[in-house]
Amino acid sequence: MGGVVSGSGGAGAPPMGTRGPVHIVGTGLLGASIGVALTRGGVHVTLEDASPIPSAVAAELGAGVVGQPGEQGPSLVVVAVPPEVAGSVVARALSTWPAAVVTDVASVKESVLGEVRRAGGDLTRYVGSHPMAGRERSGAAAAMADLFVGRPWVICAPEEASSSSVLVVRELAVDVGARVVHLGARAHDEAVALVSHMPQVVASVAAKCLVGASANALDLAGQGLRDTTRIAGSDPGLWAAILLGNAGPVASRLREVADGLSAAIDALAAAEAGEEGKAVAALHRLMASGNDGVLGIPGKHGGARTEYDAVTVLVPDQPGELGRLFTEVGRVGVNLEDVHIEHAGGKPVGLTTLSVPRGAGVGLGEALTAAGWRILG
Amino acid sequence: MGGVVSGSGGAGAPPMGTRGPVHIVGTGLLGASIGVALTRGGVHVTLEDASPIPSAVAAELGAGVVGQPGEQGPSLVVVAVPPEVAGSVVARALSTWPAAVVTDVASVKESVLGEVRRAGGDLTRYVGSHPMAGRERSGAAAAMADLFVGRPWVICAPEEASSSSVLVVRELAVDVGARVVHLGARAHDEAVALVSHMPQVVASVAAKCLVGASANALDLAGQGLRDTTRIAGSDPGLWAAILLGNAGPVASRLREVADGLSAAIDALAAAEAGEEGKAVAALHRLMASGNDGVLGIPGKHGGARTEYDAVTVLVPDQPGELGRLFTEVGRVGVNLEDVHIEHAGGKPVGLTTLSVPRGAGVGLGEALTAAGWRILG
Repeated sequence: MGGVVSGSGGAGAPPMGTRGPVHIVGTGLLGASIGVALTRGGVHVTLEDASPIPSAVAAELGAGVVGQPGEQGPSLVVVAVPPEVAGSVVARALSTWPAAVVTDVASVKESVLGEVRRAGGDLTRYVGSHPMAGRERSGAAAAMADLFVGRPWVICAPEEASSSSVLVVRELAVDVGARVVHLGARAHDEAVALVSHMPQVVASVAAKCLVGASANALDLAGQGLRDTTRIAGSDPGLWAAILLGNAGPVASRLREVADGLSAAIDALAAAEAGEEGKAVAALHRLMASGNDGVLGIPGKHGGARTEYDAVTVLVPDQPGELGRLFTEVGRVGVNLEDVHIEHAGGKPVGLTTLSVPRGAGVGLGEALTAAGWRILG
Repeated sequence: MGGVVSGSGGAGAPPMGTRGPVHIVGTGLLGASIGVALTRGGVHVTLEDASPIPSAVAAELGAGVVGQPGEQGPSLVVVAVPPEVAGSVVARALSTWPAAVVTDVASVKESVLGEVRRAGGDLTRYVGSHPMAGRERSGAAAAMADLFVGRPWVICAPEEASSSSVLVVRELAVDVGARVVHLGARAHDEAVALVSHMPQVVASVAAKCLVGASANALDLAGQGLRDTTRIAGSDPGLWAAILLGNAGPVASRLREVADGLSAAIDALAAAEAGEEGKAVAALHRLMASGNDGVLGIPGKHGGARTEYDAVTVLVPDQPGELGRLFTEVGRVGVNLEDVHIEHAGGKPVGLTTLSVPRGAGVGLGEALTAAGWRILG
């Protein structure tokens, strides 16, 4: 199972490019996971945290040893603390270890860079990182060597950064299995404002409308509402700090969303005032732009979005039935791109939609039908 | 496989309460699916459509026979035409067949009722329906007898409707396997404005922001963006008509969303003006309300939302691997509530998260580990 994953250790593990010692400040999910991956690759890692418990947990998980780096100092310091304090911790690390390259993993980058700059930190040795590998769980206990495998790791080097500093951080990203993306701090912040921070606020604001809704209304909720609001379950404290650290770009995207909403509200008001033709045209235009927008989201392997064939199967809601189904799918030799299970409220059946590569749907449907499954198109 | 599904025909099929003949006007997905379910149950169904092709396709699928009802007239007319014309078609049906009960399946109800009322239709025989069973595909070719199984079917009876008319429509809903919900037309429209129409506009407006975004930015898109904007891929023509038919309640919900966005934008502006404490408090409050909102969405079986245990497994992205995984899950005897596959961009692995009933996660994780799977917490 683990053979395809780099950095998972064992006799055949590929070599690490990172030369230790590496000092990790902050042993939450990201810091501990980096420590585990490096330690498994044979890199010497020291761990530091404001609180003794997370660093002890991280050490227990194999992220490194708790304590300060030895006499020679670290070659790389990874600052993995909350975004609102990342800048000051980076600046302190730059001055404490004058030979070390320092990176941070905060999900906002311009505000961190600004703080390091204001603190007079040596920017030739600072290179920001944003490994985009959050999970729904947080904390050291959720750490794992494979957290970054295949995920984007954005490297934001200030113009002052030396090439060798950039390469040290790139080595780290590649060592933990990530896919390196180079962006300026401002470009990074604008990108995540669009693809991460805006959707988070939109989902939260939409979910907020559900507070106090009648059971009658909520009882009619379908998959659309669930999907649209799923990420509204995220941690408010963490997100308040992230949004604050990217206030300008996020506000600008939210204003765009607000303009879109205003257009919809105006169209609906026009409809109520009898101008139905105008209203339909405006609403149609808005929805069609939404169509265009989702088509731009890249597909699973980082390439252009692919259209898949969908095969929907009626599956009794009992242990083992999905196993039987997927075994059959495996026998047919089709690679599943996605699975979507839609439970039928109050009934012991679920609609399971299998997304398979374009062209493979018809054959899969026929094979499943032949094996006794109910296919719904 | 089909044994748990009512209305799927065969020797042991339960009896239908609906007495024919039933006349269906409009043979798109909903009309054709109702026809197929009733015909399989032995009810005589006639089909009518403005265009000859969909009705021929529907007849071919077993939805009934194309043509007008015989001399005696239908006992029930199902109007399954687009929402903007449903009212006038219902009114015409009421006057054409003076002994028939008439229902429609439009996803907005007050505007249809208003039109029937204005046209002087006999409201003792009109009972509105909203079977909440849309699929991503549309048209007669996607029709199926099981479309409504376990789904809510909202019955909106005007106060003038006779009890016997209401019972005829209730019989239809139960015959096709749906779960009956009684609501007034206004209450229905307000409920779907909240749980269906608002999320649709929000998703579309958010997706609209992606139009013209740089490849750099879109390349960083994660599952959050995909989920939040998924339904923005819906049909603009159909949705413009639905929103228009529910303009008041939708506008009111969108204003609430706009207020939430304004609060976020104001907080971010306050942050930029140096009032960080105030900004953090406001953003935290907003996100926490979003947490509360999603907690109100009922769980899969129409009951209160349940928290599930999540077990995340690293699965090589190759045919057969998911089959092996689910076979193992079936052997453990755990019922999967949900499956979420997250592909790692550019790498031949995917994180598959299995949601299982609370308490079953630890045992499943241990069993899968013992069977050689990589569990990620």
